[in-house]
Amino acid sequence: MKITWELAHLAHVELLTPKLDESIRFFTEILGMYISGIEGDSAYLRAYDDYEHHTLKLTAHRHSGMGHFAWRTRSQDSLETRVMAIEATGLGIGWEDHECGYGRAYKFYYPDGHQCELYFDSHKFKAEGDQKSALKNTASRFPGKGMNVRRIDHLNLLAKDIVAFRDFQFGIVGGRMTETIIFDEQPKGVWVSVNNKSYDLAITEDHSGMNGRFHHLTYAVNSREEVLLAADIALENGVFIETGPHKHAIQQTFFLYLYEPGGNRIEIANPTARLILDPDYETIVWNKEERMKGQAWGLKTVESFHTRGTPMPEELL
Amino acid sequence: MKITWELAHLAHVELLTPKLDESIRFFTEILGMYISGIEGDSAYLRAYDDYEHHTLKLTAHRHSGMGHFAWRTRSQDSLETRVMAIEATGLGIGWEDHECGYGRAYKFYYPDGHQCELYFDSHKFKAEGDQKSALKNTASRFPGKGMNVRRIDHLNLLAKDIVAFRDFQFGIVGGRMTETIIFDEQPKGVWVSVNNKSYDLAITEDHSGMNGRFHHLTYAVNSREEVLLAADIALENGVFIETGPHKHAIQQTFFLYLYEPGGNRIEIANPTARLILDPDYETIVWNKEERMKGQAWGLKTVESFHTRGTPMPEELL
Amino acid sequence: MKITWELAHLAHVELLTPKLDESIRFFTEILGMYISGIEGDSAYLRAYDDYEHHTLKLTAHRHSGMGHFAWRTRSQDSLETRVMAIEATGLGIGWEDHECGYGRAYKFYYPDGHQCELYFDSHKFKAEGDQKSALKNTASRFPGKGMNVRRIDHLNLLAKDIVAFRDFQFGIVGGRMTETIIFDEQPKGVWVSVNNKSYDLAITEDHSGMNGRFHHLTYAVNSREEVLLAADIALENGVFIETGPHKHAIQQTFFLYLYEPGGNRIEIANPTARLILDPDYETIVWNKEERMKGQAWGLKTVESFHTRGTPMPEELL
Amino acid sequence: MKITWELAHLAHVELLTPKLDESIRFFTEILGMYISGIEGDSAYLRAYDDYEHHTLKLTAHRHSGMGHFAWRTRSQDSLETRVMAIEATGLGIGWEDHECGYGRAYKFYYPDGHQCELYFDSHKFKAEGDQKSALKNTASRFPGKGMNVRRIDHLNLLAKDIVAFRDFQFGIVGGRMTETIIFDEQPKGVWVSVNNKSYDLAITEDHSGMNGRFHHLTYAVNSREEVLLAADIALENGVFIETGPHKHAIQQTFFLYLYEPGGNRIEIANPTARLILDPDYETIVWNKEERMKGQAWGLKTVESFHTRGTPMPEELL
Repeated sequence: MKITWELAHLAHVELLTPKLDESIRFFTEILGMYISGIEGDSAYLRAYDDYEHHTLKLTAHRHSGMGHFAWRTRSQDSLETRVMAIEATGLGIGWEDHECGYGRAYKFYYPDGHQCELYFDSHKFKAEGDQKSALKNTASRFPGKGMNVRRIDHLNLLAKDIVAFRDFQFGIVGGRMTETIIFDEQPKGVWVSVNNKSYDLAITEDHSGMNGRFHHLTYAVNSREEVLLAADIALENGVFIETGPHKHAIQQTFFLYLYEPGGNRIEIANPTARLILDPDYETIVWNKEERMKGQAWGLKTVESFHTRGTPMPEELL
Repeated sequence: MKITWELAHLAHVELLTPKLDESIRFFTEILGMYISGIEGDSAYLRAYDDYEHHTLKLTAHRHSGMGHFAWRTRSQDSLETRVMAIEATGLGIGWEDHECGYGRAYKFYYPDGHQCELYFDSHKFKAEGDQKSALKNTASRFPGKGMNVRRIDHLNLLAKDIVAFRDFQFGIVGGRMTETIIFDEQPKGVWVSVNNKSYDLAITEDHSGMNGRFHHLTYAVNSREEVLLAADIALENGVFIETGPHKHAIQQTFFLYLYEPGGNRIEIANPTARLILDPDYETIVWNKEERMKGQAWGLKTVESFHTRGTPMPEELL
Repeated sequence: MKITWELAHLAHVELLTPKLDESIRFFTEILGMYISGIEGDSAYLRAYDDYEHHTLKLTAHRHSGMGHFAWRTRSQDSLETRVMAIEATGLGIGWEDHECGYGRAYKFYYPDGHQCELYFDSHKFKAEGDQKSALKNTASRFPGKGMNVRRIDHLNLLAKDIVAFRDFQFGIVGGRMTETIIFDEQPKGVWVSVNNKSYDLAITEDHSGMNGRFHHLTYAVNSREEVLLAADIALENGVFIETGPHKHAIQQTFFLYLYEPGGNRIEIANPTARLILDPDYETIVWNKEERMKGQAWGLKTVESFHTRGTPMPEELL
Repeated sequence: MKITWELAHLAHVELLTPKLDESIRFFTEILGMYISGIEGDSAYLRAYDDYEHHTLKLTAHRHSGMGHFAWRTRSQDSLETRVMAIEATGLGIGWEDHECGYGRAYKFYYPDGHQCELYFDSHKFKAEGDQKSALKNTASRFPGKGMNVRRIDHLNLLAKDIVAFRDFQFGIVGGRMTETIIFDEQPKGVWVSVNNKSYDLAITEDHSGMNGRFHHLTYAVNSREEVLLAADIALENGVFIETGPHKHAIQQTFFLYLYEPGGNRIEIANPTARLILDPDYETIVWNKEERMKGQAWGLKTVESFHTRGTPMPEELL
């Protein structure tokens, strides 16, 4: 199988939080997510239509940031092929056996220091009791609580060396580049899609001199109207709104950027039915002049969006 | 002041329920309403943007139905003028002093036996603590719970003698007739507006031989999308959906009809920004042929909608 | 009748445009409005659910701005009562007989120099042929064109002396003040409602030293989703978007500000089902600190919004 | 590559119409589609975000029905692998060279007689002039016309022998079965997905004794609100609405079924952000009891939906 198609989707993200209880409350009461389990200093959560055991792991830590993220591959074969390629780069860490949500996974570093896992063996979520939906083709019951987020959508990381990240992603890990920002021949942002969503991972340039930083994690809702309702819910709950709702020119995502109590940036978004079905889709390239126009409807990008990221824990570097 | 404008709005409705606790749970957990108070066998509730103490009173009773409903007048003068007119008809009951939500009110019968109150003195709700909205022009905090109903919208009653009801309404109580159904010169339905909403009360013909029956009470949400979400929430909570979501031809209301656990029909609706601003609006008349087309987009009206009403308690007749 | 209720609604606005043909094209092709007639240098237009002959008059002129605006009264009596009050102020101009859309009207100046008309006699629009709706309770056919605006919503004027404007409005012309901005005991903005809409006219302070300027005219659509679609349509048609879509804290209007080709600011808005039904509604007062928070979800108000208005034609002053 | 992933997406459908001009007007004026070309008795059309030259071919014919449909493969290799498999079944017709929209394609019969093409070589659409979008990641300009359909979504065919169709699809052509209806161990409906959309093709049982019939073709809009607006536009344009808007239990599609002037059933739908990202998704099976509940919110399926299909032209059989 071509490397383009060997990953199935973004599987989960581990966020670090100095305020674990408040972060759990934010994701369950305000976003409407379900708790799949709590183990030690970590809580496992999922949105109502996430089919896996969890898409978010919250871990208590002295500061905010990302612990690791994970891709699920399309098959066991794909997993093994990718691991071989990664091992050859010297960035591999090794195999681990998990019991909470998935089985055997391979851990490795991205060139900027972010930790990532690949796995195929998923312990899929079987909704029971109160979490069982009346519609058997929904992973679990529509919560009717807070923002009612549906599923994990994408992850945005910051990278000091964006060329190294990009080449590692498409040459070794998988996926295709659906959009990119190029200023004076230098890439400033890269959007990675591993399936028919228009992106699953975005990498934007880090000007801070730091490595391995996290920018944001996104959960999707079903409509733009629900993003607007989410803004009202954020307002009513004293959640800081950094920017939005508005529409990105890039990828056309209808966005709302919030901060969870632990300090990590969270996006509530509606992808507005956009799909990339063309198997030989040509990368959309945005230049400086185009980016100067701001977001789709003219909103200027807030300064903090370019500068604020959540650091990588030192002990993980 | 012309009789057209002496009532301000539909104020509240008292519903009887043989399952008080379950009914309270339905309106708070599923519709997202707030409890203003509980007193004896009654609970007082309000939607998040209702400005009065309550718009719904739930009272334990051996069967379902309506206890009474109330209009707030535009002024103390209007109240007194209307009371004089009602007293002259012999349908008056008398003045009562209330402590829960409003003060002095005048009680009377409509010709079909429904009990009604008129009052001006309202104990307006002052949101505090958790119920206080971040926006000072909202009566209370957007709940982010269940269907998030915004305000009481309208009441639909059944009447054996619809001509008598209509003439009493427009000749004695107030308002104007924005729409009506006429078959072979006989009115089958009448829509009453007392302000710029296109209706606050609907009366439809009762073929059962009974008097004083209740058809439904409606709470409004802000968008049609939220009516669709309400349908999903009803489905997930095992709430019986009688019909909808769909759009009525009459009044163009986007509707969803449910039953609360006590057996009363409840509508969740979006009036889609329709307002009657024309001071000499000409009543829209619907004939038989037009009604045979079904609802706006062709849905046939379900049979139960024509036959099922909740009875009047005998002791109130 | 109390002065509060003697006006029925904002009736129409005359905008001046140096590019009449382009302005007509903007309102018909992009907003989806209908042309009711063209006479001399003026075109008369209406949104699909406006019940009057026109709500917008476009007149060719060497610069942009407002010619006049008009209120329809609730009755002939109300008209005469108001005219007497206006005449007593010395700001009256006199009666005029119109043939295009309405009959006898009384013209007068507001204290800041804006010209206004009052009338009751309306030549209501009767849709025929292609403009006739399949639903007899819609003024004309839903256009399925561009932004599909439904009805005139409100007008925003600038005034050098806002206290004079306000006192004239509520003491002489009619309506009630639903919201106001007060900085250091000085009013900076006043919102006027003459019916159950939360406002029909807004007046904001003019810092330019000029009199009689126009800020914007608003047409309403049925949902926030349609405001978002309007933003896409503006983008695709090269229409300048000044700010939005976003939600105002004041009045909670979901807004999008555009410029029509003649240079006048036009708002597309959804009032999100907000109604003021309380007959003794207490004015909401916003202070400086509250205004510093920006719009409802935190968007900073664009500078041009505070400074840019369209001037009053000299010959009208 | 596994047969699951060798097709990229549903590419286009050829519909036959006895009223070519009226059908063209329906798809352009009412659905808001663009014409890519007209050649002989056929017109080629596309929705605004379809990236290929056309997704709909309308061909004049003495009756309605489907001429053929086409899949685009993920690669040239996939095309050749699939063709070999098809040829081995004896259902192949042969290679054809096209000039209008795509190049070399392989034509074959499905077991029920429907004609189908496979190709990889696509002449992608390059929007210019009036059709060019302000956003370079949209295939062409958002039309702001009628229903504003975004892209081809799926095709529904009727088949006498549904087992034969199903086995041919998954054993020879490609894709995976995301949902199915099984009554008494007999399949009644099969939903085929070839990518991350939850389906691209549906096959339902034909009780008429005929072969090769067409049920409906679906175009997607971006939101449920736009499906509701589409219902209003259908109503205003005298387009017959067979059923909807409502939500299917199967696949959860929010649907509206219309007839185009040539007599073919057309669906306007919003897939509500549903994606199947799980690479080993387990087929959802619906039994008789579950189907008896009607659609998601309880609407009974209209009888014509089970019986009415558009016949296969004899000369194609």
